[in-house]
Amino acid sequence: MKNLKLASGEKGDRTIVKVSNAEIGRGFVVIAGPCSVENERQVLETAHAVKDAGADMLRGGAFKPRTSPYAFQGLGLRGLKILEKARQETGLPIVSEVVDPRDVSWVAEFADVLQIGARNMQNFSLLKEVGRAGRPVLLKRGMHSTLEEWLNCAEYVLSEGNPDVILCERGIRTFEKYTRNTLDLSAVPAIKELTHLPIIIDPTHSTGRISLIGPMSLAAVAAGSDGLIIEVHHKPEEALCDAEQALTPDMFIDIMGRLKALKSFLDNQAS
Amino acid sequence: MKNLKLASGEKGDRTIVKVSNAEIGRGFVVIAGPCSVENERQVLETAHAVKDAGADMLRGGAFKPRTSPYAFQGLGLRGLKILEKARQETGLPIVSEVVDPRDVSWVAEFADVLQIGARNMQNFSLLKEVGRAGRPVLLKRGMHSTLEEWLNCAEYVLSEGNPDVILCERGIRTFEKYTRNTLDLSAVPAIKELTHLPIIIDPTHSTGRISLIGPMSLAAVAAGSDGLIIEVHHKPEEALCDAEQALTPDMFIDIMGRLKALKSFLDNQAS
Amino acid sequence: MKNLKLASGEKGDRTIVKVSNAEIGRGFVVIAGPCSVENERQVLETAHAVKDAGADMLRGGAFKPRTSPYAFQGLGLRGLKILEKARQETGLPIVSEVVDPRDVSWVAEFADVLQIGARNMQNFSLLKEVGRAGRPVLLKRGMHSTLEEWLNCAEYVLSEGNPDVILCERGIRTFEKYTRNTLDLSAVPAIKELTHLPIIIDPTHSTGRISLIGPMSLAAVAAGSDGLIIEVHHKPEEALCDAEQALTPDMFIDIMGRLKALKSFLDNQAS
Amino acid sequence: MKNLKLASGEKGDRTIVKVSNAEIGRGFVVIAGPCSVENERQVLETAHAVKDAGADMLRGGAFKPRTSPYAFQGLGLRGLKILEKARQETGLPIVSEVVDPRDVSWVAEFADVLQIGARNMQNFSLLKEVGRAGRPVLLKRGMHSTLEEWLNCAEYVLSEGNPDVILCERGIRTFEKYTRNTLDLSAVPAIKELTHLPIIIDPTHSTGRISLIGPMSLAAVAAGSDGLIIEVHHKPEEALCDAEQALTPDMFIDIMGRLKALKSFLDNQAS
Repeated sequence: MKNLKLASGEKGDRTIVKVSNAEIGRGFVVIAGPCSVENERQVLETAHAVKDAGADMLRGGAFKPRTSPYAFQGLGLRGLKILEKARQETGLPIVSEVVDPRDVSWVAEFADVLQIGARNMQNFSLLKEVGRAGRPVLLKRGMHSTLEEWLNCAEYVLSEGNPDVILCERGIRTFEKYTRNTLDLSAVPAIKELTHLPIIIDPTHSTGRISLIGPMSLAAVAAGSDGLIIEVHHKPEEALCDAEQALTPDMFIDIMGRLKALKSFLDNQAS
Repeated sequence: MKNLKLASGEKGDRTIVKVSNAEIGRGFVVIAGPCSVENERQVLETAHAVKDAGADMLRGGAFKPRTSPYAFQGLGLRGLKILEKARQETGLPIVSEVVDPRDVSWVAEFADVLQIGARNMQNFSLLKEVGRAGRPVLLKRGMHSTLEEWLNCAEYVLSEGNPDVILCERGIRTFEKYTRNTLDLSAVPAIKELTHLPIIIDPTHSTGRISLIGPMSLAAVAAGSDGLIIEVHHKPEEALCDAEQALTPDMFIDIMGRLKALKSFLDNQAS
Repeated sequence: MKNLKLASGEKGDRTIVKVSNAEIGRGFVVIAGPCSVENERQVLETAHAVKDAGADMLRGGAFKPRTSPYAFQGLGLRGLKILEKARQETGLPIVSEVVDPRDVSWVAEFADVLQIGARNMQNFSLLKEVGRAGRPVLLKRGMHSTLEEWLNCAEYVLSEGNPDVILCERGIRTFEKYTRNTLDLSAVPAIKELTHLPIIIDPTHSTGRISLIGPMSLAAVAAGSDGLIIEVHHKPEEALCDAEQALTPDMFIDIMGRLKALKSFLDNQAS
Repeated sequence: MKNLKLASGEKGDRTIVKVSNAEIGRGFVVIAGPCSVENERQVLETAHAVKDAGADMLRGGAFKPRTSPYAFQGLGLRGLKILEKARQETGLPIVSEVVDPRDVSWVAEFADVLQIGARNMQNFSLLKEVGRAGRPVLLKRGMHSTLEEWLNCAEYVLSEGNPDVILCERGIRTFEKYTRNTLDLSAVPAIKELTHLPIIIDPTHSTGRISLIGPMSLAAVAAGSDGLIIEVHHKPEEALCDAEQALTPDMFIDIMGRLKALKSFLDNQAS
């Protein structure tokens, strides 16, 4: 890949992004939580549930980029304060999206990891800003983005001095309509040979179907993914967005059990 | 299309966006100029050339969103001042891209039309900001965007109180590699039935081939487009970006002659 | 383009395919008629209507490749005999699809032009067979096909000794769902620089919307297409397939008037 | 999914396709061998190698649908006789492609499973013919095909009375160019909920990169695939086609070891 100086895979050691106790790029990290922060009870109940099931971090959106200006846009600062409370109660680090370069500095005071959503992958002003924020960045792949373009976006963050970029494959847009997007799982081994940065999989937004999340999560482990980011909601039927694709805590517990067993089997094989 | 209140086509009268003497949505408007502002001589020579050939507005990028952080990123304020000088000399209104919400207010003092590029189509913070800028907005279609998503982005601008949105089809990403993107010219009549907003075509970035710009420009006129935005460079072989797809002034003069003849034939037919 | 010996554009003279009085590649040829042959009355009424409106050839499918095995598959030989009668009454040459290599020789006794549908573009056994059939071949582009692959399929026909291949762009499959497929009109000038073979446009299957057929037909003329193939049905509301996209004879008359005026304007310009 | 009577998933018991000792749909079946049959030594050496490594069936193309008419098209009958000899020596059942409806009956005397390639997925004449051939059919997904269209093609085979269809996902065409195609692994659990037919994965043609075949094979097992079809060549550097993506016997042995271990771990988990 041309144009890559810092993300290029020819560097030897792989990047390990440390977030509290989690090490993305070394173990297998699961980030779970609701699509958007709706209220305190929703976040706290979900946070405790995913913590108990073994999740490593809590996700939750305070700013939601929505197709329509008339759809729920997130709680903003109020949402971040709710996430902060969840971290205090559970100890889980927080992953939350930032959508505006003007918000980066103060959102970084609440979030342990700054997420850049698929629609903003090539928002270069935002990328440069999170490159200076002193927080790890979770960079989702744009739905129309080649691996090369994606890595060049990571390069925007790295070249500002921030070495902690976690790549996240969340499905690309194709003609297939049974799934919400098409999960390009082969991006996992491909990215491993192109860069030293860790990569995780989002089985929720890629498939958009609860029934496919379990199988594709296991497949992600087997393909060598460094982790997963999964939507879990304490009561999906009441969710303000993505109600049809959030796991219940019980479903999540079941998947976590299978993931951990598989991961420890594969680790034993390798050693 | 769901979610559209203001862009919806059911409103009766079509929007006419007035920019100096040009009326986008009524006549046929041609915007021409270099991809990026490189230096004063380049801009002034090109501006006079496109003015003489009959162009209605001058395009030129002072901020260039580039795939790689190491590629030329534009001259910024210095570039805008060069464009201002070109407007003073030629009288042509200026179309220039803005990529950061923090820049909107001051870029709006130089540019007559604020361009939102394809990569920023769903940069909602930026859309809201240009919705409050008091300047017409040229909204390019994302390379992965459906018509519905595109119109919802226009809705973000309109819902902030700015009625002057010009849509610009610039090619979508497909598997075909002979052309840089695939020009979806059927978007012209489709958009006409979905919204009252005007739509123009970018034959340069969609095809990426000089030899296709003439035929597709004529096709755009015949399909009912409200105008074109075309890259012209006084010396394409010296261009810092897109050298392979910019027209020379002579090529542009030739195409303009054919466009005007076709447009006036079609107008006579219709009347 | 690699692999092309016979279709390559470097040969000088352009191919003119003669079918009765029509010359595809010289004038502008319009092929019109129903999607499928349903009964004698439907075909004869439609044939007379399109003849009166100025069409050059009659299209009609006796074999219909359908997504489901339970959908109407066409009348076969009975359909071809109906088409033969329509030719006798109107003098219009017949364009009809063949889907099985075993049928080529006898279908060629009824059809003046053998159509290869998009789904069969890479059915190489069928291509070789029509390459030996002594009839011009209308080769539709596969919905997933690059220009290079398409021309290689033409090469399969040419290399069997049949020089009379007419290419037909009928839309490619993309993520956009407002139109049935995405008409890649830039294929017209692209094909003109890659090969000496003529190319026509199918505005019906590409857009799948009656309201877009007129504008895209005019655009095809302006882009330099050698012709059009359009679905017309004497009573679209009774059609067994594609009812929602067939023009009525009145709509077709209107479009033909505008097409002819535009074509003759452009011819005058060029001379 | 509309139009499906026989492939529909609502039938209760899953289909098990028996081929000699292999049961596709019950265990995990690996089909391996060269892209095309080139000569006896190549096939026999490769056949013994994959047999020793634990493969269940031998693949090898006697008819190769190639983009260009001037590329190697396969050995035809001579190739099938070589495959027959390999079966006699190794006991491995043969999977071989058929491309022409006229060849089905005699190819079926050599091949234990008739393969329909991606380009012929919607060659309905061919599908009907293999539906009457009394041999299991391996139906590859077209590179542009939705799950619904693919299952409708299976329906063409089933509706002729042949219940033994094995679906094979081999990658879809997208804009991504790092991989040859994009492997849609989520098709495995999706197909499992839409139909009772078994599904296998082709990691070779989907990724087109040797380095990705191992990880995606393991991922296929974890996602619930019923098997794999993999290209192995005794000397890939001498292969007449796909030289860059065929595994050596040593690579194949390594992958088989990991696949079997993973499969038996997952089976133990489930029981």
